[in-house]
Amino acid sequence: MKPGDRVRVDRDDRTFEGVLLPSSDDDQLVVKLEGGYNVGVDRGGAEVAVLAEDVYEIDGTDSTGDGGESEIEFDEELPTISLISTGGTIASTVDYRTGAVTAQFDAEDVLRAVPDLAGRANYRGRVVANILSENMEPPIWQDLARAVHEEIENGADGVVVMHGTDTMQYSASALAFMLETPVPIVFTGSQRSADRPSSDNVMNAVCAVEAAKSDCAEVLVCMHASESDDVCALHRGTRVRKNHTSRRDAFETVGAEPLGDVDYESETVQFHRKYQHRDERDLSLADGLSEDVELLKFTPGMDPAFLDVAEGSAGLILEGTGLGHVHTDFIPRIEELVEGGTTVVMTSQCLEGRICDRVYDTGRDLLEAGVIEAGDTVPGTAKVKLMWALENAESVAETMETSLAGELQERSVPWE
Amino acid sequence: MKPGDRVRVDRDDRTFEGVLLPSSDDDQLVVKLEGGYNVGVDRGGAEVAVLAEDVYEIDGTDSTGDGGESEIEFDEELPTISLISTGGTIASTVDYRTGAVTAQFDAEDVLRAVPDLAGRANYRGRVVANILSENMEPPIWQDLARAVHEEIENGADGVVVMHGTDTMQYSASALAFMLETPVPIVFTGSQRSADRPSSDNVMNAVCAVEAAKSDCAEVLVCMHASESDDVCALHRGTRVRKNHTSRRDAFETVGAEPLGDVDYESETVQFHRKYQHRDERDLSLADGLSEDVELLKFTPGMDPAFLDVAEGSAGLILEGTGLGHVHTDFIPRIEELVEGGTTVVMTSQCLEGRICDRVYDTGRDLLEAGVIEAGDTVPGTAKVKLMWALENAESVAETMETSLAGELQERSVPWE
Repeated sequence: MKPGDRVRVDRDDRTFEGVLLPSSDDDQLVVKLEGGYNVGVDRGGAEVAVLAEDVYEIDGTDSTGDGGESEIEFDEELPTISLISTGGTIASTVDYRTGAVTAQFDAEDVLRAVPDLAGRANYRGRVVANILSENMEPPIWQDLARAVHEEIENGADGVVVMHGTDTMQYSASALAFMLETPVPIVFTGSQRSADRPSSDNVMNAVCAVEAAKSDCAEVLVCMHASESDDVCALHRGTRVRKNHTSRRDAFETVGAEPLGDVDYESETVQFHRKYQHRDERDLSLADGLSEDVELLKFTPGMDPAFLDVAEGSAGLILEGTGLGHVHTDFIPRIEELVEGGTTVVMTSQCLEGRICDRVYDTGRDLLEAGVIEAGDTVPGTAKVKLMWALENAESVAETMETSLAGELQERSVPWE
Repeated sequence: MKPGDRVRVDRDDRTFEGVLLPSSDDDQLVVKLEGGYNVGVDRGGAEVAVLAEDVYEIDGTDSTGDGGESEIEFDEELPTISLISTGGTIASTVDYRTGAVTAQFDAEDVLRAVPDLAGRANYRGRVVANILSENMEPPIWQDLARAVHEEIENGADGVVVMHGTDTMQYSASALAFMLETPVPIVFTGSQRSADRPSSDNVMNAVCAVEAAKSDCAEVLVCMHASESDDVCALHRGTRVRKNHTSRRDAFETVGAEPLGDVDYESETVQFHRKYQHRDERDLSLADGLSEDVELLKFTPGMDPAFLDVAEGSAGLILEGTGLGHVHTDFIPRIEELVEGGTTVVMTSQCLEGRICDRVYDTGRDLLEAGVIEAGDTVPGTAKVKLMWALENAESVAETMETSLAGELQERSVPWE
């Protein structure tokens, strides 16, 4: 068997039939199913039958990101949008052109996957990773930031990042802190694969390209705004959260309306709040990230031994209750962590509203122990920000209390 | 100085002036401030000046819960509501009658604190704890469940539990699993103390009493439904979440509308969904709880060493991404935990929507490793339920996948 063959793969009680694709992972068979959805199957224990040879042309040419051999002509009237793939459900609609990890794809591949993108931009593409987003890790955020930086440096008028939805909010936050950008960087994904009638991948991709052509030079997340196929919401990357496991409109901006939206039919991009305009900032990259940061959600009955996990760590995000509390018994141990050099930052599991540790005794004791308040920063975003701040900020405490990329909103505690 | 004296307490840079109350903790001074809000101050390092003696009568009589010496007459036309205090902002409006931990209060104390409660019910009261709710622990849930059981056994037509808002949702879940009840058990609290014009304590207390008189024999949470003083929402205890750090309408039912509401002005209690009716179930108590359960929220870049904390534990709740995922590298370690006897249950940090680990490889591998799916159970509720199931259920796995007290809603994954 070889890439391009039609195969049937049996493993355990499951059977997949489709075209074998090149795989960068020797232990995995990648099969393109009817309807365009790719599935990865462990090679171990899998039985493969070749049903037909060479049913699909797999192009081994490593077409470059900057134009290359594409048959689609460059249109000087149109902006150039870079599509960067990291994997996930949405990326599985684009065929691989090579089996290498640094695989790239070109306009032709893009338009074969999503014909509706034709005529909207000149496209170039590259693959930074091909993973399920639960396997996303800080080093891949760094690769992604460097790739986006390179694309913008090479003249992209906007960037679309295709990403699995599970951890999209963390990756979008990471890029928002690592990059200052003069053009839009738009994450999009898909909650339902292309082989399902309810798939959201085409509309999300089209709207993301429109957003990437817009005036908003921020890191955005573009996903369905409702259960209808009419409008995509544009969320600020540092304030967005996947709030539903399966709905197409799972993504929400925490504590505010989305920054803007894209009307699918009229192709109109609108912004409803203040944002960073195109070309107002120079491109810059600060890609240092400390991997030595943990996040701990406090719940009643929790064993204080959990805190030992953070001993010697550079940073710890606490997801406390209410205004930013944990059981009083945790406070002496937190003080020891701070004295040992760990930066401890408080966020709230309420998700909405601001930390305020000056109201109750527990909070005041936490502040005295050296805990830093993250305002209304969403806990996951606070973790990513602390990873970044530990490597890039002069004062980590001051940085955590200052909005760098919209992660802190207006003060929302009414007595301030 | 003695309880009943007007005092000024100076400690660090803070000054409190008010009436000294009896304290069950020798290390704490408890001062009732102007406006009725109680504050606890560490005795160490505090300077106390007596401004006037005996300005307030502190009754040392241990008035019993079943009527006792109250001057308020029992009205046979009215139902009897038990008010149980655990502490928190709302409880600080009720005066202590004794300094003992088992302190009780009677109808007179209740009506002095919230005169608007007059004429609605016969009241009796008891104090189970006097703590900030971040310090709530499973043994106090058990004390509380036993106290509620006793009150209902002794003829209460409904129970109101006054509780700090930080961990109210966990305590309400605990009671929902430990008790089968023929009458309403209504938690209420206060997001703003009584000395502030925006205090919500009177309306929440009044609406909670009305709900406790209603037909709904479930554990409910009664808090402001909006920022106005018009309606309180009645949330099912196992589905509610504090979603804002400071707003009065911080509490929301996850993934559904609230079960009902109470109109403050018209005193009307309405239910909008199916519920358990009064007197349909016999009273019963199953108060066993395993304290050996942890909750772990997965975030990208997380150190797998966190999982070691759960080694040898009876149970572990994972708060995964999306449909119920963690980094693939965690799976072998999770399998070891399961083989070591730890019950591992998957929930989602999305909060809304159902776990479904049969869609992607990561999920299927987790199921093969022995992970149990908690459906759309809110993660904190799943932790409390697992604590209960480990001590009371014949099959823990089956129990976690079955709705006992409304914690599991309709299947919400559309492809099922």
